[in-house]
Amino acid sequence: MLFLAPIGSILAILFSIFLIRKILRHDEGTAEMKEIAGWIREGAYAYIKRQYSIVGIFFAAVFSVLFLLYLRGYLIIFVPFAFLTGGFFSGLCGFIGMSVSTRSSARTTAAAKSSLNGALQVAFSSGAVMGLMVVGLGLLDLSIWYYFLDWYYRGLDEAIRIQNITSTMLNFGMGASFMALFARVGGGIFTKAADVGADLVGKIECGIPEDDPRNPAVIADNVGDNVGDVAGMGADLYESYVGSIVATMALGSAAFVSYGKSLQGITIPMVMAAVGVVASLIGTFFVRSKEKAEQHELLMALRRGIFVSAALIAIGSFFVIKFVLGMQFIGVYGAVLSGLIAGIVMGLSTEYFTSDRYAPTRAVAKSSRTGPATVIISGLSVGMISTVIPVVVVALAILGAFYFSGGAKDFNLGLYGVGIAAVGMLSTLGITLATDAYGPVADNAGGNAEMSHQAPEVRKRTDALDSLGNTTAATGKGFAIGSAALSALALIAAYREHLHLLGMTINTDLMNPRLLAGLFIGAMLPFAFCSLTMSAVGRAASGVVEEVRRQFREIKGLMEGKEKPDYARCVDIVTTSAQKEMILPSLLAILAPIVVGLLMGIEAGVGLLVGALVSGFVLAIMMANSGGVWDNAKKYIESGAEGGKGSSCHKAAVVGDTVGDPFKDTSGPSLNILIKLMSMVSIVFASFIISNTLFK
Amino acid sequence: MLFLAPIGSILAILFSIFLIRKILRHDEGTAEMKEIAGWIREGAYAYIKRQYSIVGIFFAAVFSVLFLLYLRGYLIIFVPFAFLTGGFFSGLCGFIGMSVSTRSSARTTAAAKSSLNGALQVAFSSGAVMGLMVVGLGLLDLSIWYYFLDWYYRGLDEAIRIQNITSTMLNFGMGASFMALFARVGGGIFTKAADVGADLVGKIECGIPEDDPRNPAVIADNVGDNVGDVAGMGADLYESYVGSIVATMALGSAAFVSYGKSLQGITIPMVMAAVGVVASLIGTFFVRSKEKAEQHELLMALRRGIFVSAALIAIGSFFVIKFVLGMQFIGVYGAVLSGLIAGIVMGLSTEYFTSDRYAPTRAVAKSSRTGPATVIISGLSVGMISTVIPVVVVALAILGAFYFSGGAKDFNLGLYGVGIAAVGMLSTLGITLATDAYGPVADNAGGNAEMSHQAPEVRKRTDALDSLGNTTAATGKGFAIGSAALSALALIAAYREHLHLLGMTINTDLMNPRLLAGLFIGAMLPFAFCSLTMSAVGRAASGVVEEVRRQFREIKGLMEGKEKPDYARCVDIVTTSAQKEMILPSLLAILAPIVVGLLMGIEAGVGLLVGALVSGFVLAIMMANSGGVWDNAKKYIESGAEGGKGSSCHKAAVVGDTVGDPFKDTSGPSLNILIKLMSMVSIVFASFIISNTLFK
Repeated sequence: MLFLAPIGSILAILFSIFLIRKILRHDEGTAEMKEIAGWIREGAYAYIKRQYSIVGIFFAAVFSVLFLLYLRGYLIIFVPFAFLTGGFFSGLCGFIGMSVSTRSSARTTAAAKSSLNGALQVAFSSGAVMGLMVVGLGLLDLSIWYYFLDWYYRGLDEAIRIQNITSTMLNFGMGASFMALFARVGGGIFTKAADVGADLVGKIECGIPEDDPRNPAVIADNVGDNVGDVAGMGADLYESYVGSIVATMALGSAAFVSYGKSLQGITIPMVMAAVGVVASLIGTFFVRSKEKAEQHELLMALRRGIFVSAALIAIGSFFVIKFVLGMQFIGVYGAVLSGLIAGIVMGLSTEYFTSDRYAPTRAVAKSSRTGPATVIISGLSVGMISTVIPVVVVALAILGAFYFSGGAKDFNLGLYGVGIAAVGMLSTLGITLATDAYGPVADNAGGNAEMSHQAPEVRKRTDALDSLGNTTAATGKGFAIGSAALSALALIAAYREHLHLLGMTINTDLMNPRLLAGLFIGAMLPFAFCSLTMSAVGRAASGVVEEVRRQFREIKGLMEGKEKPDYARCVDIVTTSAQKEMILPSLLAILAPIVVGLLMGIEAGVGLLVGALVSGFVLAIMMANSGGVWDNAKKYIESGAEGGKGSSCHKAAVVGDTVGDPFKDTSGPSLNILIKLMSMVSIVFASFIISNTLFK
Repeated sequence: MLFLAPIGSILAILFSIFLIRKILRHDEGTAEMKEIAGWIREGAYAYIKRQYSIVGIFFAAVFSVLFLLYLRGYLIIFVPFAFLTGGFFSGLCGFIGMSVSTRSSARTTAAAKSSLNGALQVAFSSGAVMGLMVVGLGLLDLSIWYYFLDWYYRGLDEAIRIQNITSTMLNFGMGASFMALFARVGGGIFTKAADVGADLVGKIECGIPEDDPRNPAVIADNVGDNVGDVAGMGADLYESYVGSIVATMALGSAAFVSYGKSLQGITIPMVMAAVGVVASLIGTFFVRSKEKAEQHELLMALRRGIFVSAALIAIGSFFVIKFVLGMQFIGVYGAVLSGLIAGIVMGLSTEYFTSDRYAPTRAVAKSSRTGPATVIISGLSVGMISTVIPVVVVALAILGAFYFSGGAKDFNLGLYGVGIAAVGMLSTLGITLATDAYGPVADNAGGNAEMSHQAPEVRKRTDALDSLGNTTAATGKGFAIGSAALSALALIAAYREHLHLLGMTINTDLMNPRLLAGLFIGAMLPFAFCSLTMSAVGRAASGVVEEVRRQFREIKGLMEGKEKPDYARCVDIVTTSAQKEMILPSLLAILAPIVVGLLMGIEAGVGLLVGALVSGFVLAIMMANSGGVWDNAKKYIESGAEGGKGSSCHKAAVVGDTVGDPFKDTSGPSLNILIKLMSMVSIVFASFIISNTLFK
């Protein structure tokens, strides 16, 4: 049944192409609308060109290091090349996703002239391209390598062959990880530096509204939505997707060898991914809305797509497991359900804590009565308490996945179950990412309507879609964090198994002092990483502020709307500083596990991964939800509560929103990458660290 | 040599009494000064009376539970009674410390009329009483029980007798833990609710300065300094002190039994504590200042005391270890040094990140140019990056203590070394706490000078002392967090040993899913706990705001200074709400380890402790240092930087300071208690959980 994987991947890619053609057939609107969309597209291309050329240099350097490690016997020859293909496919996803999203925004605005559902269809289709491309290309990369390695190792016994394949493929996530690092961190810095910079001068100093074409940073701000929330989010989830599959294959090969079912064990994650592709495809057809839909009905339209897909996966994977593994191992199905349910509950929990329909957001809005300080305190407090449900859910999912799969009798089966839970959660990725990557398109469509002076009802329709996009962005973040945590856990388990295969028996007792030292350092790393990314946003934003001030000062007639600002210069400044600022946090993430492993021993390295996972997971949820609740409390006040727009409450809430920007769009999401990437780096550099550590 | 412990303890108590008499001989100043001091003293007594009566009920309830556990065979008979003595001595410390500090503030003001050194002597003596009482009474409690148990078990073989003594005494920290919980959490809520409430109405709404006698909450604010920073801090460190000693004794009994040196092993922590008492006593004589001392010279005066004590301990403990354990185990001395050095480095690191003499505080002050949002972001960023040094230092201290003590050959010896590092760090407690508890006295003295309209040079002298107190408060917090982390780690190690003695062999492998689930939940608990305590401060402060507004509205002539406000009513309101608000977070801390242990198994309980330790440690440092840097950035601006007092930069910095108040004085320090208390609860309830857990 393994052949289902390449079939699913090709199906996803073909359907994406069909969607792209469908989107492009839509009218892009008036000349003005086209011009605005053109600037954004140009800015996005300029960004991605610069980013990919820097990433290219970086990939060349890491490729050389990996090749050197191969020459010294620490790696097999395929790893450096698989590193390149992983990075290439992930980068390709980002490129396609952004190309489509920047072509869809004006078309969404144009469609909004006639109907809400029409606009929803265009924006959602653009999101669906991103979602399906991620799963399609991810699965394609894995399938190609699987069949190649299967052919390469054809002379070996099945069990040994599979062990060789999976232990090789385990190294393959690193290309995707590195690409994700740059896309998330660089994109996160870009989007928030542009946003904060545009707001600080435009809204606060000059008093012009959001998305005003006179603001020189307005295009950079719109580009940022695509760069951060489309390309960045896509690369993040591509990494989780590929990482959880290769980790589960490695765990499966170890777990089922004694039952003579290695092949079956590694088939499950690949086939489940294929089932997920088909289910997501079907799910997209259930996303439609009637005209004059309420906010809540629109949300239901998107939810319907996800729920249909999840139900199809729940049904399909039962038969897959029964057919492939047999009734003896049907318990593994419990692991699938654990992951699926955990993903859905985490999304709902995020919505509760960040939507203005519920108490927490309203409490934060109310706290604005006593000024910005109480807004900050109450928002942090909501973010902190919002970690309880996701953490308990993930803890229960781990226990459920482990014990349902038979971990009580066979420890390796239990770990395999944990991997399957991650794969189960991520099997809805095609559609979940679609609902998420739809957001920036709707946001840009609103900006386009504003800048091209459309009739109020157009703006009202795009606003409805944009506001929905804020909710799906929040739940999407919850999903991304939860799946990152489970994927990272599967990778850590696979890493431990990998060390066994390398002949290392390590003492992972919790009281081993080296492991404890690693745990402490690991728990600290997410904080250090957030500090670096937050201050990076501050520095990059100050560059934008200066440039915007300069343009207002030097370009005569700009404030009166007679002259056009130099949009490209702002895009260029943020692009340059985002590339520069992403280096230090990236190095921290890459070097920390290697340095700690070399100086404190391999057990400290394992402790570091687990410490970073547990503290990073909690911190990421807190930052995402604090940011979300501040954002929505501000919007709630703007909708008329607590004195409405311009009141002192609103000013206090804007402070919260500004603090929340880097929280929810830069530092928080970047933690997802940190926890996964460090595991991937540990796996790839394992042999090197073992041979060269000072502390054996 | 064990007899040195009671001797040291009595010495400390006698010297404290001598200091108290010396302080009381000082003149308390004018009638007005006496009156003001009287109000604060009355308020403090009212608070402590209410708190102790609630705590009394609570202790009676827990005593009954423990007695029930004894009747059901889960505990031995001494545990419930030791619980009471621990609570009693800790409470007595707090009572004496507060009695003295509230009697010293007016005397410090009076002494400041003639000389700076005179004022420093009074304030520091008051701090020294607290420091020496904590170590004296702590050591007395332990000595009494030790000699009693030694007599009780007199019929047994030495090794068995000592094992019985240490495993019984291990349970004895819980009384101190519970007392610390209420003192820290209740005191923390009190002090910040009063402070924030007084500021919100007084400074912001009515525009009257800090410490203005017209503000009805001003006395409550001054009471809060004593309640939070004297009694709360003292109880926190009392718990660390007692906890680290009993944990190390339990680890020593296990480590040295095979060498026939159980008695020697448990002697070391007790005797080192006694050496620490003498060294602290001597250190106090080195704290003196010349007239017209610069801020930095004053700091050096206090530092000199600590460094002299640390040097004496470093010398003394070498001979203690050589004499008691012999040269064979001289490596244990390396553990002492690891702890001592880590404590000092953590203090210096805190100073760097929070003092306005260094770059981080100045950068936060500078960020106020772009408004409150950037102040918040930069302050959080400083707090987050400031976790790096303390975490690396603690990780190195753990490794150093473990391996120096011989952990590579004998695992138990290594764990004993970790305990010794905690004891080593805390051996300077007498003097470290003195420099810390001196702060509130100086602060109150400044308030007294302001309210009683003293000459400017008096206020200038008290300001110099107060400002110094802010620095020592920050470094004291670093010390309290670091020692809490090491004590908690020693307690967890002792807990694991305790489980062995109970016949449980638990699988503490990091990949055990129950342990992992516990780790995740544990890492989340500090965040949930902070959320609860922060929102508690908000609610309690809003009660104060309403009362202050009411008094300004209803008491005619108050604003003009013709009528006195009703100070007692404000104290009463904060007292009541602090007692009410401390219940929920306290229950979380007490019940979490029991509930998780019962529902998910004992391994999950162990994971929970370690998860809470690593994430709580990092979060506590971040919160303390973010709070510290905001406070000092505001003070730096008030001293004239960035436009000075009243500028828009100052307003932005005030927002940061207000957010920082609950960070540094409520939530952050309360985490110290959380991580230690949960270990103590786990130890005491271990038998009960083992017998009744659902997940065996």
